[in-house]
Amino acid sequence: MFEAFELGRTLSKEDFDAQEGPLREALLEAQMDLKNSKKFGVVVIIGGVKGAGKRETVGVLNSWMDPRFIDTLGLREPSDEERERPPMWRFWRMLPPKGRIALFHGSWHTMPIVDRAFGRISASRMEREMERIRDFETMLAHEGVLVLKFWMHLAKDLQKKRMKAIEKDPLTSWRITRQDWENFERYDTFRKVSARAIQLTSTAEAPWTLVEATDHRHQLITVGRHLLENLRARLDETRPAVPLVHIPPVRKVAEEVNPLRALDLSGKLEKKDYETELERWQGDLARLTRTKAFQKRSLVCVFEGMDAAGKGGGIRRVVAALDAGRVKVVPVAAPTEEERAQPYLWRFWRQLPRWGSATLFDRSWYGRVLVERVEGFAQDSDWMRAFEEINSFEDQMRRSGTVVCKFWLQISQDEQLRRFEARADTAFKRFKITDEDWRNREKWPAYEAAICDMIERTGTEEIPWTLVPAEDKYFGRVVILRTLVERLKAALEG
Amino acid sequence: MFEAFELGRTLSKEDFDAQEGPLREALLEAQMDLKNSKKFGVVVIIGGVKGAGKRETVGVLNSWMDPRFIDTLGLREPSDEERERPPMWRFWRMLPPKGRIALFHGSWHTMPIVDRAFGRISASRMEREMERIRDFETMLAHEGVLVLKFWMHLAKDLQKKRMKAIEKDPLTSWRITRQDWENFERYDTFRKVSARAIQLTSTAEAPWTLVEATDHRHQLITVGRHLLENLRARLDETRPAVPLVHIPPVRKVAEEVNPLRALDLSGKLEKKDYETELERWQGDLARLTRTKAFQKRSLVCVFEGMDAAGKGGGIRRVVAALDAGRVKVVPVAAPTEEERAQPYLWRFWRQLPRWGSATLFDRSWYGRVLVERVEGFAQDSDWMRAFEEINSFEDQMRRSGTVVCKFWLQISQDEQLRRFEARADTAFKRFKITDEDWRNREKWPAYEAAICDMIERTGTEEIPWTLVPAEDKYFGRVVILRTLVERLKAALEG
Repeated sequence: MFEAFELGRTLSKEDFDAQEGPLREALLEAQMDLKNSKKFGVVVIIGGVKGAGKRETVGVLNSWMDPRFIDTLGLREPSDEERERPPMWRFWRMLPPKGRIALFHGSWHTMPIVDRAFGRISASRMEREMERIRDFETMLAHEGVLVLKFWMHLAKDLQKKRMKAIEKDPLTSWRITRQDWENFERYDTFRKVSARAIQLTSTAEAPWTLVEATDHRHQLITVGRHLLENLRARLDETRPAVPLVHIPPVRKVAEEVNPLRALDLSGKLEKKDYETELERWQGDLARLTRTKAFQKRSLVCVFEGMDAAGKGGGIRRVVAALDAGRVKVVPVAAPTEEERAQPYLWRFWRQLPRWGSATLFDRSWYGRVLVERVEGFAQDSDWMRAFEEINSFEDQMRRSGTVVCKFWLQISQDEQLRRFEARADTAFKRFKITDEDWRNREKWPAYEAAICDMIERTGTEEIPWTLVPAEDKYFGRVVILRTLVERLKAALEG
Repeated sequence: MFEAFELGRTLSKEDFDAQEGPLREALLEAQMDLKNSKKFGVVVIIGGVKGAGKRETVGVLNSWMDPRFIDTLGLREPSDEERERPPMWRFWRMLPPKGRIALFHGSWHTMPIVDRAFGRISASRMEREMERIRDFETMLAHEGVLVLKFWMHLAKDLQKKRMKAIEKDPLTSWRITRQDWENFERYDTFRKVSARAIQLTSTAEAPWTLVEATDHRHQLITVGRHLLENLRARLDETRPAVPLVHIPPVRKVAEEVNPLRALDLSGKLEKKDYETELERWQGDLARLTRTKAFQKRSLVCVFEGMDAAGKGGGIRRVVAALDAGRVKVVPVAAPTEEERAQPYLWRFWRQLPRWGSATLFDRSWYGRVLVERVEGFAQDSDWMRAFEEINSFEDQMRRSGTVVCKFWLQISQDEQLRRFEARADTAFKRFKITDEDWRNREKWPAYEAAICDMIERTGTEEIPWTLVPAEDKYFGRVVILRTLVERLKAALEG
C-alpha cells in the first residue's frame, strides 16, 4: 500500500511561499466560520512514524490557524483516573465541542498498532480493536463530527536519517527515546501492521489520507489543502451532515413473544417479608462492594421504566446499601449546553465511575431508543444506529471491569394510573407528577414496541436486561437488589 | 469549647419517630424547590471524629431526601491529576451546581487538622491554612452558595466505645483502620486542634454548627432541622443572598502615578532584529519547557489588554515555542450554562494545567474587575471582593509550583484606531472587528481607571503584572517572550 506513496514528490520554496499565504487565509476564514456557526466539531488525526514530521505539521497547523480555537492533544501516559475507566474514556474527554478543532498527535489507533508490532496482542485481537475504532469513528461522523485522518509515510532509510537529525539537534534530541529506536528496528513490522490498521479503519465516513513525508513543504501544503477542502465543503453544505442510509425498519415483535406481556407481574411481598429480604440483600450488597476485589472493579446500573414504575424507590434502596461517598446517582434530564455540543453518548461517558465506585443512572442512554424514538426527537437513522453504539459502549465498560446491570421496571397500565392518582393526592410526592406524564400514557403501545426492540437488540448474555416485575413495589425492589448481588458475586468471584 | 456540648442530650424513639416524618417531608419539599428553582447550590460539610456517626448522618440525609439530586463526596487519596494542581483543585471539581446539594464527608478542613495533630505542620501554618479556608468559604457564600458545616463531637470514652463497636461488626469493621487508632491516641491533641480550626473558620457567612454525637437520634434530628431551616430561609428569601456590605470605594489613581500613562510606548524593533530576538527567546522558552525540572511545574499565562492590543499575536508566538500537545489556549468568552451554575472562578480553575503543561488565557478572571466592573455586569461588592479572591487564586497556583505570568498589553488610543481601521480593510482579519469594539473605545477612560486599580491591587512581588509596551507589535512580543523566559528560568533554577 505504502509503495504507491513513495513517489518522492517535492515542492519548491517558491511554490510553497506562493501557496502558503492564500491557503492560510482560507483556512483561517474557514476556522472562523466554524467557530461562529458552531456547526460541527472537527477531529484531525496526525498519524505516522517517528520523524515523519507529525509534530511539525501540528505546529504549522496551529500557526496557520488561530490556536485559541484548536485543542492540540498529545498522547501521554494515561492518568490513574483514566486507567480506572475503559480505554476510550480518555479520548471521549478530548473530543472537540461544536465549533472547535481537535488536533490529535497520536490517537486511539496508536496503542493497538504498537502492541501488535511488539507482539503483545494477536493479529485477530488487533483486527477486533480496529473494528471497534471503525465503529467509533463512524459514530462520530454520524453525530456530525468531521473526522480527518492523515498518515505520514516515510521510507525506511529516510526515517533513519530524520531520526538521527532530530537526535543531533540539542533542541529536539529529547524527542528521540530508546523506545523510538526499538520501534525503528521493527520498521518492517510496523509498516505491515500500520498498513493493515489503515485498511481496516478507512471508511467512507472517516477515510485515511496518506501523505508522503519525504518533503516537508509538499507534506504541509497537502495536509493544509485537504483540511481546507473538507472544512469548506462541510461548512457550505446545506443537506444533513451524513446522508441518510436506508436501514430496514426494526421488525415488529409478535404479540405472543412480547417479553413484557409475558412477564408475570403477580409477584408480591408482605411488608414483613420485604423488610427481611431487603435487609438481607442490602447487607450482601454492602459487603460485596467493600471487598478488596471490588476496589479494582466498578458498578454501573441503569434504571429504566415507565413513569411511576418505581425507579426512584429502587435507586434509593440501592444507595442505602452502598458507601454514599462512592456512589453517584445521575438523573438524566435535558442535556446541558456543553453536552449538546458533543456526540450523544458523551454525557454518559463523562459520568462513568472510577474503581471501587458506582454510578446509578435514573434513565440513561436508552432514551435514544425510547423517548427520542417514540416522540420523534431523533431521526430514524439515529435511533436505529444507536443499538449498536450502545452495545459497544456497554461492552467497553464490561471489558474494563465494570459490572453493568440494566433494569427495566415493568408495571401494568392500570397500576400506573393508580399510582398517578395516588400521587396527585399525596403532598409528599406531588412534585413528581406533571401534565406530560398524563399525556405519555396515551403512547403506551408505541413505547411498548420500542421497549421490546430495545430488549431484543441490547440484551446480551454478558449484559442482560433484568425485567423487574414492579407491580408490587416491595417485590420489585427485592428483585433489583438480589440481581445486583448475584451479578456482583459472579463478577467478583468468577 | 467542646465542653459546652457534652450535655448528654438524647431523644426518645417515640419523639424521633414523631418528628422524622414531617421533617423528611419538609426536607424533600425544600430539596425539590431548590432543584426546580436552581436558585443556589448547597455545600453541607459533615466533620468530626471517627465514630461520631458522620457516615450514618450522610446516609440518613440521603435517605430522607432524594439521592438523585445530592452529590455525596467522600475524601479519597488525591488522584495524580489532582496532585498536579493546587490542593483546592479537587474541591473545586466537587462544587455543586445551582439546584444541587453536595454532602461532604470529609472536606478541605480535614488535611490541615490531621497534619497539625501529627505535628507535620506548625501551628502558624495551620492558622494560615484556616485563613485561606475562611476566605474560600466566604467567597462561596458571596457567590450565592449556601454553606452549612456540622461538627460531630464525641467525648473520649464514648469515641473509644463506638470505634470498638464498629470494629466488632463484620459489616463495618473495614471502616476502622490502624490509622484511626493512631488518631485516637491523639484524642486530646485532635480535640485542641479541631477546636482551634473551628474557631478560625466560623464566620457569619459559613458558621459551624456543633452537634453532640452521643445520641444518634438527637444528632440526626438536629442536623436535619438545621439543614431544613437554612434551606427554607434561603429559598424563601427575596433579598440578595448576601447583604451588601459597604466597602469603601477604590481609591482613584492620581494622574502622575498612573502606571499606564507612565509606560514608555516608544520601544520599536526592526523586522530583522525582531526575527533574531524572536528566535532567541522562543528557543530559550522551548528549551526551558522541555527540561526535567519543568515536568514537575506548570505555566499559566494571562493575556489582558485593550481590543487590538495584540493579545492573539502574542499568544501565537508563545504557542509556537511550546510543545503543542502540552499547551492549551483558553479564549475567554461568555460562560457556558455549566459554568454559570458555579462560582465565578470555577471556569478558570477547571482549565488549570497539569505538570509539564501550560494554559494561556486570552482574557481571564480579570474580566471581573475590568469589563464587568466598567460595564456594570457585576455589582460593586462583587468586583470589589474579586481582588482578594484573585490574589488567593493565583497564590494557590504559585504555591503548588505553577509559574504565573500576567501580561497587560498597552497601546495608545491612536494606535488602536489605526489598527481598527486597518483591520476593517484587511479581509484576513475582518472577522475580528465588531460594532462593540468601536463602542468600547468611548469608555477608554473608565477602563483605564479600572486597569490601574487592577495593577495596584493584584500585582505582587511573586506574581507581578508585566506591562507590555505593545504600540510596536514586534517590540511587545519580544517583551512577552523575554519575560516568560526570565520568569521560568528564575522558577526552575531558583
